[in-house]
Amino acid sequence: MSAAAQAKRLRGDDLEVVVLDRGRHTSYSACGIPYWVGGEVDGPDALVARSPEEHRRRGLDLRLRTEAVGLDLAAGVVHARDLDAGTDLRFGYDHLLHATGAVPVRPPVPGIDAAGVFGVQVLDDGQAVIDHLAGLPDGARGVVVGAGYIGVEMAEALVRHGLRVTVVDKAPEPMTTLDPDMGAMVHREMECLGIDVRTGTGLLGVETGADGAVRAVVTEDGTLPADVVVLGLGVRPATGLAREAGLPLGDAGGVRTDLRMAVPGHEGVWAAGDCVEVFDRVSQSWLHVPLGTHANKQGRVAGTNLGGGYATFPGVVRTAISKVCGLEIGRTGLTERDARAAGFRYVVGRIESTTTAGYMPAARSLHVKVLAEVGSGRLLGAQVVGFEGSAKRIDVFATALWNRMTVDEMTGMDLSYAPPFSPVWDAVLIAARKTADLLQPPGGG
Amino acid sequence: MSAAAQAKRLRGDDLEVVVLDRGRHTSYSACGIPYWVGGEVDGPDALVARSPEEHRRRGLDLRLRTEAVGLDLAAGVVHARDLDAGTDLRFGYDHLLHATGAVPVRPPVPGIDAAGVFGVQVLDDGQAVIDHLAGLPDGARGVVVGAGYIGVEMAEALVRHGLRVTVVDKAPEPMTTLDPDMGAMVHREMECLGIDVRTGTGLLGVETGADGAVRAVVTEDGTLPADVVVLGLGVRPATGLAREAGLPLGDAGGVRTDLRMAVPGHEGVWAAGDCVEVFDRVSQSWLHVPLGTHANKQGRVAGTNLGGGYATFPGVVRTAISKVCGLEIGRTGLTERDARAAGFRYVVGRIESTTTAGYMPAARSLHVKVLAEVGSGRLLGAQVVGFEGSAKRIDVFATALWNRMTVDEMTGMDLSYAPPFSPVWDAVLIAARKTADLLQPPGGG
Repeated sequence: MSAAAQAKRLRGDDLEVVVLDRGRHTSYSACGIPYWVGGEVDGPDALVARSPEEHRRRGLDLRLRTEAVGLDLAAGVVHARDLDAGTDLRFGYDHLLHATGAVPVRPPVPGIDAAGVFGVQVLDDGQAVIDHLAGLPDGARGVVVGAGYIGVEMAEALVRHGLRVTVVDKAPEPMTTLDPDMGAMVHREMECLGIDVRTGTGLLGVETGADGAVRAVVTEDGTLPADVVVLGLGVRPATGLAREAGLPLGDAGGVRTDLRMAVPGHEGVWAAGDCVEVFDRVSQSWLHVPLGTHANKQGRVAGTNLGGGYATFPGVVRTAISKVCGLEIGRTGLTERDARAAGFRYVVGRIESTTTAGYMPAARSLHVKVLAEVGSGRLLGAQVVGFEGSAKRIDVFATALWNRMTVDEMTGMDLSYAPPFSPVWDAVLIAARKTADLLQPPGGG
Repeated sequence: MSAAAQAKRLRGDDLEVVVLDRGRHTSYSACGIPYWVGGEVDGPDALVARSPEEHRRRGLDLRLRTEAVGLDLAAGVVHARDLDAGTDLRFGYDHLLHATGAVPVRPPVPGIDAAGVFGVQVLDDGQAVIDHLAGLPDGARGVVVGAGYIGVEMAEALVRHGLRVTVVDKAPEPMTTLDPDMGAMVHREMECLGIDVRTGTGLLGVETGADGAVRAVVTEDGTLPADVVVLGLGVRPATGLAREAGLPLGDAGGVRTDLRMAVPGHEGVWAAGDCVEVFDRVSQSWLHVPLGTHANKQGRVAGTNLGGGYATFPGVVRTAISKVCGLEIGRTGLTERDARAAGFRYVVGRIESTTTAGYMPAARSLHVKVLAEVGSGRLLGAQVVGFEGSAKRIDVFATALWNRMTVDEMTGMDLSYAPPFSPVWDAVLIAARKTADLLQPPGGG
């Protein structure tokens, strides 16, 4: 919708824009679903940034409940199906934007499709979970499979509903976008919230009752009774159409594009959003990073170019942020695992500091971990885990990373200081200093 | 103390470090005084990061209540006075660090030295204000002269004490480190707190009672009854000794140093802290910016160099942050006034956004103003005024400014997004985009 709106904005009546979507909603925040399920946000209307009617008033020919089922690139035609009427449709085009998004990973284990097992991706998924929870008795049990962003957020949402919650994950610690030493802090916070965290535990299957509904989750660590199961195992790019049509896919499974979000070798074909791969500026590799912020930027870029303007998407540095209960989590750049995979030699600086001057009543603990390249001294990545007011500091690291700063340069930066906001040396500076000193001791010149 | 500690850390027994200070305390947070006076923080001990005893245990020869009264640079001697014993002392040196700090501005108006009129700079000032407030009756009145950082913070502290508070300032809006359009928001928040804000109003004098204590403040806008007066008119570098000794002073009134904090033309003489000028990387001019964060960094740099190592202070971008009641205030780089003074042609982008996704219950309003240079598109400065969670975003602008980014480049940055932390486009990106579009409309390629 971001691309469609941008193209229409630039070209007006000169461009007819048809949008096909198999769902019922437009421009909604999928990231907000856990907060809706947890009762913090009214939904689903509050999560919709722009309704179908608003898009139509701006001149978009929006076809909901209409699924694209085939692309004929040679003829310039999209084949589609009206899901309600059950009829077939065809749409000719001059420009095609492929923005099919991603689909939640559902492991092929017995019972995974039972009633009461939910992925969380579209608004209808949120409503389905809420409806299911409403029918559960007091003391009901929830099992979340996967301790990534969505898994952890959904676990907290279920706790808010009064459920007894277990989270199961194969990895040694939750939040594998962090290194395990930082993930261990998330683990402890989840336990403080009363969540039973089973790490290093694979999913084997789902048991159902006589009514066909979920009754338990079978794991490598035993069988867990469950009245509701939420899958938080991540998503993969939805590329069925692209594959059939012969669009280029990368090693991470997404559609490849150039900087303008054009699909190379296919004039007039563009792609954006969770279905594409993004270039990571730090490791210089292509990845699948399905985040709303990238999808939005890419949509705007694709729409600008498709509308005859010029814009590029400059890649990512893998910045992400999250929250579990009171604990805030930020990361950017490379973790140790990422850095090793990319072939970097690095040093690691770890510090603990406070969100405000230590003497202020609001002072909260935060931990920062920084990776820098041996030799160049260049920042490679940072992870922040701490309480209220901690995690947005990751944006300073992201900006430094974007600009290829060394950790030594970072120590001189003019960051803001006042007692309600940071110690006189902000945690970012302390962490950069600690890491720089590992590369070259002070006074070592 | 930062320099002394760093030099001692590097050189150990090889370097004898004598520290002279006319006060009774070391390494304390002057910025914390308003929070102590306001009762948010216990004091004064909590504000002391390292006590005299701790410094002495680390091998520093610390002489408190000992005031340097003359520098004989040719002989390598500091003349001093033991304020308690009333005796004269002399200290020979190989290296001299000039770190005399700054003194509060006291306008030469009648009655300014009356009892009950306070500057706020050292811990003893804080104690004096607290003692004075303890003796005041219910319904007492406070007048704060100057609506900068300290003035605004002290006004809030007096309100917390139950005083009826008036703030008087010559400028058209409070917080002249912001442009007036942003300062007007601070003005409104101060009024919400019950503070009577008299802008555009000069101070004419202080009236005293028969007991010699303050009774009223005389302003261009009439006479204001006052039981306590706090001066928040800023500080100027304390350079009496430096001037007499012939050290080079700049146009902003501070001691000039090179990048290593050495005083040019005076081998073995160093200077750091609120007594020096700093180089502003954006306007490429020398300024007096008396902030603890710069003083700390400079101290470390001077101590490293004095101790035989190598370090440089890279200058500033004028980042600052503050808070009045619930309103957070951040600024970095140039305001419109600064930009005009530096000779820049610029465009101004203004936006209003939210601290979290708009649908989250914690969403609060924030305003961002961005200046970018015409032609180059380079970021020149940013101002942020908003509620909880707003102001630390200024550090992202400060980092971008440090790296000479254009606002167009900024729009592509990979900043963190999750509903509890920002809209899908963080306010920083929205503001950069708005400003970039003023320089070149989208699709204009």
